[in-house]
Amino acid sequence: MITTNPFDDDKLHEECGVFGIFNNADAAKHTALGLHALQHRGQEAAGIVSYDDTQFNAYRDAGHVGDIFSSPERMRRLEGHCAIGHNRYSTSGDTVIRNVQPLFAEMDFGGFAVAHNGNLTNARKLRRELVRRGSLFQSTTDTEVVIHLMATAPAHTVIERLIHALKQIEGAYSFTALTDSELIGVRDPLGVRPLVLGTLGDSYILASETCALDIIGADFVRDIEPGEMVVIDKEGLRSLRPFPRQRQRMCVFEYIYFSRPDSQIEGTSVYEARKRIGAELAREKETHADLVVPVPDSGVPAAIGYSNQANIPFELGIVRNHYVGRTFIEPTDSIRHLGVKLKHNANSALLRGKRVVLVDDSIVRGTTSAKIVNMVRQAGAAEVHMRIAAPPTRHPCFYGIDTPDESELLAARFDVDGMAEEIGCDTLAFISDDGLYRAMGYPKRNALQPQFCDACFTGEYPIRLTDQVEGESRQRQLNLLAEG
Amino acid sequence: MITTNPFDDDKLHEECGVFGIFNNADAAKHTALGLHALQHRGQEAAGIVSYDDTQFNAYRDAGHVGDIFSSPERMRRLEGHCAIGHNRYSTSGDTVIRNVQPLFAEMDFGGFAVAHNGNLTNARKLRRELVRRGSLFQSTTDTEVVIHLMATAPAHTVIERLIHALKQIEGAYSFTALTDSELIGVRDPLGVRPLVLGTLGDSYILASETCALDIIGADFVRDIEPGEMVVIDKEGLRSLRPFPRQRQRMCVFEYIYFSRPDSQIEGTSVYEARKRIGAELAREKETHADLVVPVPDSGVPAAIGYSNQANIPFELGIVRNHYVGRTFIEPTDSIRHLGVKLKHNANSALLRGKRVVLVDDSIVRGTTSAKIVNMVRQAGAAEVHMRIAAPPTRHPCFYGIDTPDESELLAARFDVDGMAEEIGCDTLAFISDDGLYRAMGYPKRNALQPQFCDACFTGEYPIRLTDQVEGESRQRQLNLLAEG
Amino acid sequence: MITTNPFDDDKLHEECGVFGIFNNADAAKHTALGLHALQHRGQEAAGIVSYDDTQFNAYRDAGHVGDIFSSPERMRRLEGHCAIGHNRYSTSGDTVIRNVQPLFAEMDFGGFAVAHNGNLTNARKLRRELVRRGSLFQSTTDTEVVIHLMATAPAHTVIERLIHALKQIEGAYSFTALTDSELIGVRDPLGVRPLVLGTLGDSYILASETCALDIIGADFVRDIEPGEMVVIDKEGLRSLRPFPRQRQRMCVFEYIYFSRPDSQIEGTSVYEARKRIGAELAREKETHADLVVPVPDSGVPAAIGYSNQANIPFELGIVRNHYVGRTFIEPTDSIRHLGVKLKHNANSALLRGKRVVLVDDSIVRGTTSAKIVNMVRQAGAAEVHMRIAAPPTRHPCFYGIDTPDESELLAARFDVDGMAEEIGCDTLAFISDDGLYRAMGYPKRNALQPQFCDACFTGEYPIRLTDQVEGESRQRQLNLLAEG
Amino acid sequence: MITTNPFDDDKLHEECGVFGIFNNADAAKHTALGLHALQHRGQEAAGIVSYDDTQFNAYRDAGHVGDIFSSPERMRRLEGHCAIGHNRYSTSGDTVIRNVQPLFAEMDFGGFAVAHNGNLTNARKLRRELVRRGSLFQSTTDTEVVIHLMATAPAHTVIERLIHALKQIEGAYSFTALTDSELIGVRDPLGVRPLVLGTLGDSYILASETCALDIIGADFVRDIEPGEMVVIDKEGLRSLRPFPRQRQRMCVFEYIYFSRPDSQIEGTSVYEARKRIGAELAREKETHADLVVPVPDSGVPAAIGYSNQANIPFELGIVRNHYVGRTFIEPTDSIRHLGVKLKHNANSALLRGKRVVLVDDSIVRGTTSAKIVNMVRQAGAAEVHMRIAAPPTRHPCFYGIDTPDESELLAARFDVDGMAEEIGCDTLAFISDDGLYRAMGYPKRNALQPQFCDACFTGEYPIRLTDQVEGESRQRQLNLLAEG
Repeated sequence: MITTNPFDDDKLHEECGVFGIFNNADAAKHTALGLHALQHRGQEAAGIVSYDDTQFNAYRDAGHVGDIFSSPERMRRLEGHCAIGHNRYSTSGDTVIRNVQPLFAEMDFGGFAVAHNGNLTNARKLRRELVRRGSLFQSTTDTEVVIHLMATAPAHTVIERLIHALKQIEGAYSFTALTDSELIGVRDPLGVRPLVLGTLGDSYILASETCALDIIGADFVRDIEPGEMVVIDKEGLRSLRPFPRQRQRMCVFEYIYFSRPDSQIEGTSVYEARKRIGAELAREKETHADLVVPVPDSGVPAAIGYSNQANIPFELGIVRNHYVGRTFIEPTDSIRHLGVKLKHNANSALLRGKRVVLVDDSIVRGTTSAKIVNMVRQAGAAEVHMRIAAPPTRHPCFYGIDTPDESELLAARFDVDGMAEEIGCDTLAFISDDGLYRAMGYPKRNALQPQFCDACFTGEYPIRLTDQVEGESRQRQLNLLAEG
Repeated sequence: MITTNPFDDDKLHEECGVFGIFNNADAAKHTALGLHALQHRGQEAAGIVSYDDTQFNAYRDAGHVGDIFSSPERMRRLEGHCAIGHNRYSTSGDTVIRNVQPLFAEMDFGGFAVAHNGNLTNARKLRRELVRRGSLFQSTTDTEVVIHLMATAPAHTVIERLIHALKQIEGAYSFTALTDSELIGVRDPLGVRPLVLGTLGDSYILASETCALDIIGADFVRDIEPGEMVVIDKEGLRSLRPFPRQRQRMCVFEYIYFSRPDSQIEGTSVYEARKRIGAELAREKETHADLVVPVPDSGVPAAIGYSNQANIPFELGIVRNHYVGRTFIEPTDSIRHLGVKLKHNANSALLRGKRVVLVDDSIVRGTTSAKIVNMVRQAGAAEVHMRIAAPPTRHPCFYGIDTPDESELLAARFDVDGMAEEIGCDTLAFISDDGLYRAMGYPKRNALQPQFCDACFTGEYPIRLTDQVEGESRQRQLNLLAEG
Repeated sequence: MITTNPFDDDKLHEECGVFGIFNNADAAKHTALGLHALQHRGQEAAGIVSYDDTQFNAYRDAGHVGDIFSSPERMRRLEGHCAIGHNRYSTSGDTVIRNVQPLFAEMDFGGFAVAHNGNLTNARKLRRELVRRGSLFQSTTDTEVVIHLMATAPAHTVIERLIHALKQIEGAYSFTALTDSELIGVRDPLGVRPLVLGTLGDSYILASETCALDIIGADFVRDIEPGEMVVIDKEGLRSLRPFPRQRQRMCVFEYIYFSRPDSQIEGTSVYEARKRIGAELAREKETHADLVVPVPDSGVPAAIGYSNQANIPFELGIVRNHYVGRTFIEPTDSIRHLGVKLKHNANSALLRGKRVVLVDDSIVRGTTSAKIVNMVRQAGAAEVHMRIAAPPTRHPCFYGIDTPDESELLAARFDVDGMAEEIGCDTLAFISDDGLYRAMGYPKRNALQPQFCDACFTGEYPIRLTDQVEGESRQRQLNLLAEG
Repeated sequence: MITTNPFDDDKLHEECGVFGIFNNADAAKHTALGLHALQHRGQEAAGIVSYDDTQFNAYRDAGHVGDIFSSPERMRRLEGHCAIGHNRYSTSGDTVIRNVQPLFAEMDFGGFAVAHNGNLTNARKLRRELVRRGSLFQSTTDTEVVIHLMATAPAHTVIERLIHALKQIEGAYSFTALTDSELIGVRDPLGVRPLVLGTLGDSYILASETCALDIIGADFVRDIEPGEMVVIDKEGLRSLRPFPRQRQRMCVFEYIYFSRPDSQIEGTSVYEARKRIGAELAREKETHADLVVPVPDSGVPAAIGYSNQANIPFELGIVRNHYVGRTFIEPTDSIRHLGVKLKHNANSALLRGKRVVLVDDSIVRGTTSAKIVNMVRQAGAAEVHMRIAAPPTRHPCFYGIDTPDESELLAARFDVDGMAEEIGCDTLAFISDDGLYRAMGYPKRNALQPQFCDACFTGEYPIRLTDQVEGESRQRQLNLLAEG
């Protein structure tokens, strides 16, 4: 099958987006809209759990938010004045419906729902211990250990039980959680994944990105701080600090590709950051060319920044077909080479005979880049100079990003010249590590205490990789109870 | 909506059928065939779990066996030489897919799958205790307590853990269970629900009824005994006796209506039993009539017995339409009275001017009976004498049969004359309790130690109704983790 | 695939049922109910066309009536006080949705809808001529020629145009048709297919069988006569006689198998006719046996007649599983022989050691008969004597019945002894031609002018087979305009 | 319902795209790819008809090309070395499957399939005449008259019959047609709709736009000329001229919005034309502003042209959400105003306090424009100056474009100041008629003989509007034969 995804194939993917709202007559509808705005963080499944003062209501399914929650009957069943929601990206095979969040459990103290963006790095070890004590797992998600840790915690209140659980888990996480009286938000001590707070009239909102506030017309209040737990109930918002304070290590790739350009993270506009990276890229290496062409759509802001800095005209040399489906016709030999054209077409009237700077946000395996360079050449470009608005991606992420095996990463296999040869461009350049930090507003990367998590570029992992180190194997199945 | 069910609306319903097979190259296919033969014991959902020497495979869905397991791909995924299966009847609303059995859990010692026919009468109390200790439930089935009791049991082997669990549960049950090396069958100490053993070449089979052996050409070996646990592994079959022996109290309604007429239970042919009940009914009360007409299809054997004994011709005075669906057109006032005719039509050419004995197996609410009597009268019958091949059904069942509230049972609301008036027949007669026992081969009902469970007629419940007595409330939801 | 049909596999099949109603507020709903009662005449597709004083409304689909017309929205769209409907049986491949009736066309004079039970024997020749003159066909049904003949007729009124068309067609037909002011019924000059007239209050009804009147509580008025056209409009009912009168040649197989036992055709109860055929069968050949067992369900009335006449007890030796689907699991070698058991099981407790008379209504290919005889033997029967309530079926039908090729008909391949050997029974007997006519109330078959169409037994075809004789080939496709 | 379409809501819509290929082993697959590239010309349904040297094969369905033709089995059934295909846009209600093209008919001479981009302006009159002569229509498409005119033509060969039909029809059309030996392309005498010729190895291709050649790697040969008929068979390509030559009147809106920016029409790059219109727009009216922001995505090329000419920075001030579905949640009052935000979000970090030039390609009803202006203001823009890359759209199109009633067109209701007030922008300007012609390379519009069809701006219709003038009413239904 030739596959055409609405997102780019050869990119790293955020695995989740979360949302929560408290005290709103349309809690579930606003949650659906918020998840729609966060769709880019998880395109394969979504779920909402609401509480209606009597009981919890849930709906989860595979598919896009706009399809899952388009049914009026489904929305009517999601009654209540508070709700949380979750988007999920998942590699094929793993997406059984049981794994779709928010997870929910009825415990001794009442119901508890939780949605998680990130990844726990000691989940398999904790799970093994819990199973030994008689806990029966219902999903293969790392998130479920939090629920079992709470169920068996030597504590009474939900908050105490949750803190008990949080103190045992390691990894990156932004949680939204719902009880019968509270909306809770938690961010891990390093603040690797984003989580913001907003208000809409008397309602409180938690969301992965500010674009989810914009879609419902909510006001942005502030980012939840690293290591902070906010508890929202009828009395208002309390801020708890269950962990010792640590320096923030926000994921820098959120600025490069994951977040939407219209979002603001920790006070910085993503669109502006990308333009500055593009400008820095033009500054780091002079290139003589006739046109600056973005790889649509993620390369556009960096290309505008590049064009302005280098004073070379910005042009739409590659046109994107907006009509894309999951899969398309089975290729025969004669049409196998057409894959990339289902989604893109080079504008040959524009490119013929020109020296082209092609700007993209990142390179993962390099497969799509090679096809795009080839397409641009076939359209008649005289020279193709590829410029990448990120350093070379050499290491896998264990903090909630879907990464291919290290052996598949182009930058782990070749140096820059080798990469240029693989991709087939005349020249290739990446922004430097320090250039990236300059674009983010720092004089340079602080090597002793880096301002961001940049493990995928540098291999310096700021949180322990317990399962990885102790060789805990991933379990194919733990429980078939409710599988479809 | 006018509803037309493939089974009769106003009947008690068996809630489940179970099947298991060990050491067979087509384990899942034979299980599907066995479940198809047991479809009358549970028409709303079905599932199969197989073990293929490496892992457990499962498929469960709502619908009929012939639809659920018709897909070759699904069947291919159910690999392995042993399998268990389950049919489920369930009232609407409760049929979330999570409740479809066999249940499965990955425990410390390995995987365990179980399918249950019957009902546990202290399940809610046990569940409450388990939740308090930190167990998270995944379904609302009573059966799941068995799994959590095993997971937290102070014992090592599967068999020890299962016996530990069985000693805590009360109620009626015939279980089939599967581990990575054993097929297990258990029947409760009173043997309320049936369970039979068969062989097919080198394969062992467990099934609720012998008709499930017939469909795959297997040989009937014997009934599993009340309180017996059989463990089948590569060494063969072992019989364990975890309970002190008690006198059997088989459910007598299995003979009256639940089991298929071509099945044999505890050495007695169901068809013959029904004919003898019909004959006994004719013997107990003489009736002058021209025709004996069965209410199709369940009344046919008793009508044949009646006709032979009373020497009145047996005729198909009511014809059944085999094309029936779940729901049909919304009735307007002018067509609301047509409901019963979607399924049945009176043969007026036959009935006009005749005195008719109408034979049915039982009366629950009486609604269908009234419609049928009315239809027979409208077709021109001169007299309608209704004869019922069971005593009046006055009490609910708590041992695995779906019964309406006692307040809806016609026999709990009226005496026989009142019932005749409600139904609109000229005369009405039920077989007596002793007549029923005579038809089953006993001189009469042993009042001190009845030979059967006949609680729905007599109100004498042979197993403690703990949840009922202690007022444990049914929980609407315990866990939304995997709900669709 | 092992196929299990809700009707019997090895039977001849009626290809269609028709219904029409005039002047009724619930026209479409009554039509849906009527089609449900006629479902046995065509199980694969159904359609309704109504007229609401402004426009015609239509819905047609593949599937059972109860599924197709269960949607309230669909029924709401079928507004109007008159409607006609159609059930269709069709062999696979041919069932494109375009062929589902009623057919409808907007002609110069207005709209015209028609539903047809029967088959035209010169349709292909007429179609070829029409195409040559520029008519574009939309379906592959023979019925469509009627519409094109009307569209191009040198006449003005609908009735004149329809009569013009009828005079050109040959074959068997019972039509119901609808214009913007009339409900029309027509029966071919020999009256091969049935068509009855009923009333319900002020409404007129036309239907293939009386059971479709019973389901809606309508009164039977009379059979439409052979060669009669009835035109029902606001003034009432007119009877036209467009053809010279001929002696009736009703299809005798309607009594043997096609019609429902609770229907009455031309004054005779189908159930009674079948019992008399069974009795005649017992009279024609004495058999010593212990039990008379019907092949369910179609053999039951003849078996009752046989049992009474022969004074041998009637018993349900074969139990039918009511849960049947279209297809079931793919057989491996080890389970291939199980096919017949999906639908039937022999009651071995009853049959063991007994001499059995097995009564069935007809034999077509003999495949199912052989499996049933084998099943009865394996259940332990000592002797199996097969008795068939029809003469040997040796010839195909061209008048609206789906028949296999002559080369597949068991009776065309073997004499009775050979057939017995193929089927594996101890003895085999069919009713004689004269015996059949005696059961139908005649002294014997009138060889010069037979009272029925019995071409499938005798090969004497009462209507010309023009297409057959002139070698008109069946066209795979004529028009793809609207194919899905 | 809040509706979110993958195309813009308040735009005129091309109603169809066509494709054809001759002599190619993957004819149907290339056709599917070509239709995918032409998806913007018709998003609601698609169809392909192929010929495999024995028979014609067809598949048509509602939905997107990538979904309809993703099934390998469907593609396998579309065998053959030649094929034609069609995309269709259709307003709701009218999209019955029967109307999905290519249309096909089996005529006396053989099969004929046709796909049509455009609209016939005397189709209703011709249809009425054909019905009067006995032709039965199967669809409500104007295209079907061509087929009936051919079926009843006094001529022999397909080509003669087609020319006979073409001489009777009026309107705009680009046809691709397929017989058992020829691929045919025709363009109306004024060449209103585009049609191009390409080659791929030994295969000939016809397509609405060059982007459909690019996707399969085919070479562009030339535009089919106005009034030209090309006939492609095994001997090669013949060009026929059935009509007297006329001056071309290509639809200028193809350059403004309908065609893809990477297509070339009549020798001009659509992208370049749009940039030149944007530049001309900047030249016609000076505006002081800080940013040029396109309404995505169709406004981007004109905005780049504007930005370069006006020397004001081009910025992505509006971000588009790529995840859009057909419908979304039912709005309550509190969320009703959010509609436009499902698809777009204003980048407030960028816009706050800025004077913004907003560039869009056209305004139809103005509803979306008003929402976008409001969104930009709420994001903090100081001034909003709207610039439109087309003249005011004041008149409906009758040549194959879906236009709202004249009474709904904003430019027919208000002058420019009134429009600005409706939309809520500070200033509003459209390109002038002459400015548009200058951007297209002419000194100005030739008022006597305009170089393009610009009827939607000027009201000067170059082809007779016979049905319109003679008051032929649109028929709701003509034939229900095959409706689902």
